[in-house]
Amino acid sequence: MSNKIRVGIVGYGNLGKGAEASIQQQPDMELVAIFSRRGAEGVTPISDDVKVLHIDEAENYQDEIDVMLLCGGSATDLPEQTPQFAKLFNTVDSYDTHAKIPEYYAAVDEVAEPNGHTSIISIGWDPGLFSLNRIMSEAILPQGETYTFWGKGLSQGHSDAVRRVEGVKAGVQYTLPSEEAIERVRNGENPELTTSEKHKRECYIVPEEGADTAEIEHTIKTMPNYFADYDTSVNFITEEELARDHSLMPHGGFVIRSGETGEKKHNQIYEFSLKLQSNPEFTASVLVAYARAAHRMNKKGDIGAKTIYDVAPAHISPKENSILRRDYL
Amino acid sequence: MSNKIRVGIVGYGNLGKGAEASIQQQPDMELVAIFSRRGAEGVTPISDDVKVLHIDEAENYQDEIDVMLLCGGSATDLPEQTPQFAKLFNTVDSYDTHAKIPEYYAAVDEVAEPNGHTSIISIGWDPGLFSLNRIMSEAILPQGETYTFWGKGLSQGHSDAVRRVEGVKAGVQYTLPSEEAIERVRNGENPELTTSEKHKRECYIVPEEGADTAEIEHTIKTMPNYFADYDTSVNFITEEELARDHSLMPHGGFVIRSGETGEKKHNQIYEFSLKLQSNPEFTASVLVAYARAAHRMNKKGDIGAKTIYDVAPAHISPKENSILRRDYL
Repeated sequence: MSNKIRVGIVGYGNLGKGAEASIQQQPDMELVAIFSRRGAEGVTPISDDVKVLHIDEAENYQDEIDVMLLCGGSATDLPEQTPQFAKLFNTVDSYDTHAKIPEYYAAVDEVAEPNGHTSIISIGWDPGLFSLNRIMSEAILPQGETYTFWGKGLSQGHSDAVRRVEGVKAGVQYTLPSEEAIERVRNGENPELTTSEKHKRECYIVPEEGADTAEIEHTIKTMPNYFADYDTSVNFITEEELARDHSLMPHGGFVIRSGETGEKKHNQIYEFSLKLQSNPEFTASVLVAYARAAHRMNKKGDIGAKTIYDVAPAHISPKENSILRRDYL
Repeated sequence: MSNKIRVGIVGYGNLGKGAEASIQQQPDMELVAIFSRRGAEGVTPISDDVKVLHIDEAENYQDEIDVMLLCGGSATDLPEQTPQFAKLFNTVDSYDTHAKIPEYYAAVDEVAEPNGHTSIISIGWDPGLFSLNRIMSEAILPQGETYTFWGKGLSQGHSDAVRRVEGVKAGVQYTLPSEEAIERVRNGENPELTTSEKHKRECYIVPEEGADTAEIEHTIKTMPNYFADYDTSVNFITEEELARDHSLMPHGGFVIRSGETGEKKHNQIYEFSLKLQSNPEFTASVLVAYARAAHRMNKKGDIGAKTIYDVAPAHISPKENSILRRDYL
């Protein structure tokens, strides 16, 4: 019998696929099965020998799976699925509708706790690692300001918006942090910055043949809410260039706390950042590491809904605590 | 009766002074007393109304102090003091002799656990926050390389070395990370780098009157172990400039993990950095935040020696977990 942590995946979009790849990298985990509404026929996993089952079969795997990774979307999948699965399994999810987290937490806790399961919610990088650094930096430096910058990242909503402009055949939009704004924060200036002052927008557009590119550029740059308030650049490219240079899903960002300490108000800069070539693969990798924590916390009797704030970092490492102390501290 | 966490400080050098200043910033803590071998006459705290006592009086304060911050040095103070104090109090310390941490941990645990106390060791930024980011980034991105860069920081040992050079009246030495090396890591090149390839050294020297500055520069740049292998610059300044521009104790650094995920080996960069105008004040601020954790973990019955790896991040925040979920996740 294997001593590995036995993991299941529910949902096989970009996130579920990233989770499959991440589990392969972990020395102490094995993937038991992928569960999808599409069933075995609708899903092609990375690895040929992975079992794919219809989502309705999951309930038969309670004795064979230690942690279920819920890789559905936050809009409709997770609010329904997580309470259902928390009844049957320890779970980890990436619920990211910030405004609704308290009610989501309550709904999951209400099921996980009485059923003796550990459900870690809202794991990833924002919410997730960024949230962690926001609370830690503020606890250490109570006097100061915290700034979050996003990017360089592909924005789905803004990409959709530019593709709806007349004369646009295809295109993508990236959100970039303003280098100038970041430098001001790193220099301890504690500036007041609006979201549009912190970010720039870059568009890469394939125009339809004969389209008026000046008109396209004007329409994009003056689009209310989406682009009008931002420093926006519009670049025209060919379909080949779009396919060659813009097929990844990069993202990332910065959490910076600028604080002051002591009688002389010394400036202290605490910074956390990510530069990701694949946003879904990284998010999935965080989920997979926290699956280890869900399993261990559950074995210790630490049940109910949890967030990244509740997880002692040693729980996400495959290494023994004594090794972590000796080699990493 | 106050509901605040009642904190004591043992040792009043730069770290102890930083701890006093940090406690003033925390909404839920109060400083009960400073204990020093020098006694009340030898110590001038920042705040006039702080009680200063001889270190031998600490044992009489077991009922009045929730957590004792041990602010002595790692060479001789802490190996002796921490086991003594862990018998009487919950403690937090900044023990930083990396190679001896396992035996130090064992010595503290042996006393803290049977006496029902919680002792968090080796808190600060390295060991401390840097260690935390090393294990978290590796758990999330198992395939990759982790790089630690230090600086810009004042190095005590190297400053002493330049001051011993003939013709040098006064001087300081800063260690700086190599910007070029950092860029290579951030670009996902995963270079192999020696310590000297990762860092530069900058010296600011006040020469004695009539000293041969060319000779001083040559002696420093060719000094074995200290400077010979490094990109070293030597700058000559006046005593006034030294006092005006080089009286702070800055430090900082970078922990960067460059990992890859997925079939296409997408590069993922995870980075944590600090830029500190006052190294001791920041280190003290981390100690103070973890004093909150020591108190809370002890109340929950989580006793014995602990490291930063064992502390759920919510424990260091003064805010309720429900507020952290609502406002920071």
